[in-house]
Amino acid sequence: MEKIMECVANFSEGRDQEKIEQIADAFRNRHGVKLLDYSSDLDHNRTVITAIGEPAALRDAAVDAIGAAVRLIDLRQQHGLHPRIGAADVVPFIPLRGCDTAEAVALARETAALVASRYQLPIYLYEQAASAPHRQNLADVRRGQFEGLAEKMRDPLWQPDFGPAEPHPSAGATAIGARLPLIAFNIELTTNDVEIARAIARTIRHSNGGYRCVKALGLYLAQHDSAQVSINLTDYTQTALYRVVEAVRTEARRYGVGIRCSELIGLIPLQAVADTAAYYLQLPSLSAASVLETHFE
Amino acid sequence: MEKIMECVANFSEGRDQEKIEQIADAFRNRHGVKLLDYSSDLDHNRTVITAIGEPAALRDAAVDAIGAAVRLIDLRQQHGLHPRIGAADVVPFIPLRGCDTAEAVALARETAALVASRYQLPIYLYEQAASAPHRQNLADVRRGQFEGLAEKMRDPLWQPDFGPAEPHPSAGATAIGARLPLIAFNIELTTNDVEIARAIARTIRHSNGGYRCVKALGLYLAQHDSAQVSINLTDYTQTALYRVVEAVRTEARRYGVGIRCSELIGLIPLQAVADTAAYYLQLPSLSAASVLETHFE
Repeated sequence: MEKIMECVANFSEGRDQEKIEQIADAFRNRHGVKLLDYSSDLDHNRTVITAIGEPAALRDAAVDAIGAAVRLIDLRQQHGLHPRIGAADVVPFIPLRGCDTAEAVALARETAALVASRYQLPIYLYEQAASAPHRQNLADVRRGQFEGLAEKMRDPLWQPDFGPAEPHPSAGATAIGARLPLIAFNIELTTNDVEIARAIARTIRHSNGGYRCVKALGLYLAQHDSAQVSINLTDYTQTALYRVVEAVRTEARRYGVGIRCSELIGLIPLQAVADTAAYYLQLPSLSAASVLETHFE
Repeated sequence: MEKIMECVANFSEGRDQEKIEQIADAFRNRHGVKLLDYSSDLDHNRTVITAIGEPAALRDAAVDAIGAAVRLIDLRQQHGLHPRIGAADVVPFIPLRGCDTAEAVALARETAALVASRYQLPIYLYEQAASAPHRQNLADVRRGQFEGLAEKMRDPLWQPDFGPAEPHPSAGATAIGARLPLIAFNIELTTNDVEIARAIARTIRHSNGGYRCVKALGLYLAQHDSAQVSINLTDYTQTALYRVVEAVRTEARRYGVGIRCSELIGLIPLQAVADTAAYYLQLPSLSAASVLETHFE
């Protein structure tokens, strides 16, 4: 069976369309790689690119994209809502078909070695690719952000896995990892009070006693003058998407607040969509095999 | 582009597993045809088989399946909740990829001609394949059911399109047609009062002033001792599935009744699932292109 790996690369530029296109170009017109989606957010000042492909080709595309980000993005001038340590901030590989997590880990390490030597870029391996348990969680790797990186690297616990032991002057460092498919899902509230979004995020996320597979932040979106709960759902098979959305709705009610709208970043697995529909339609279950892809001519 | 047609064949046997398998066998192990799903209901006493394939191969499979139904099912002894005129009751073709409605109509006519001559079976063409406007609506074609078929055929307006001008003694007649993908969706209520299900069905269906693309019946399910609203949604792009489900919920409330569970018969188009998830998650939209089919090894 053909091996298909996914790469969901996060870059710290969501405003300059020309730079975004140059980074995305690394995933375009490349044999064995398909650019599926890229979406940028002005407030987050961040672009998420989703591509799939044959592992080696996808690795080479990621290396080029990271190179473009190092060249084009200067974090000393970059400001945005979203936490970041690097121009190319986070680059995970996800095994989709015909390959497993071990192969994704190997691909992450290869990519890390290549970009570290080619761009003099310090690399942290994270999640399944992490070199130590305390480096698994991306939030811990990123704590202190770009501005705190030089000090962080002086701590022996936070030596980079590859590359120089000090931050790249303009591009910081990059977290490269291997993980299962994740759903990046933002919920905008009917309030501009970011404290409410933060309180809800604390209630639903794993780190504060919430759902097992939820990471969440409360953010203020200047573009919309509204508060947002920004969510990463790391395993929708354990913590269902509808459960998280309904938990946000329930918690928001305590403040007389509702959900204004939601936003999906990147792609969502078919089974997660089917599980969501099944819950609200009160179907006992809805298997991906019952879903028909139709295309009218 | 490869042409892919779908066939959703409805047979008036939902209880005798051996007969069901013999009918389904016509769609199995046949080059160019894939049996996607078949589901039977004891109360309805009906089986719905969903298959896709290259048009000519799918036509030949349908001809064989209809032949098996004519041989195996005797409507003089068959009783079930679901209205029916034939052993092979309804056989629509649906253009999925690389083909259009005109080709589905042509395929329906070829199938009709073949089964009429091979099994001495009267055939009504319906929906897009209908030979006259009054024969488009399946409910009109089926009115009077198997038991009223001999009388119906004496009406010049209801001469069959193919085959003899009188019912097959045990297998009645078959409606063969061409249509767009349809969602067959049943909603079981938290009551066993079939009058409530019938009242809700009348409220939501097009024929009584309800939603444009909804056909609905109220039925009593002895197996579950509960009332069911049985729905055909003929165009989910015009009348969204969530809208129908929420309308049923709203109407049921008037009787102090809720939705116990739902049931999907056959398959559901990906975009209909995505539209459903988008509504309840409050995503402005969710395109099928944002849905990723993942398969873990």
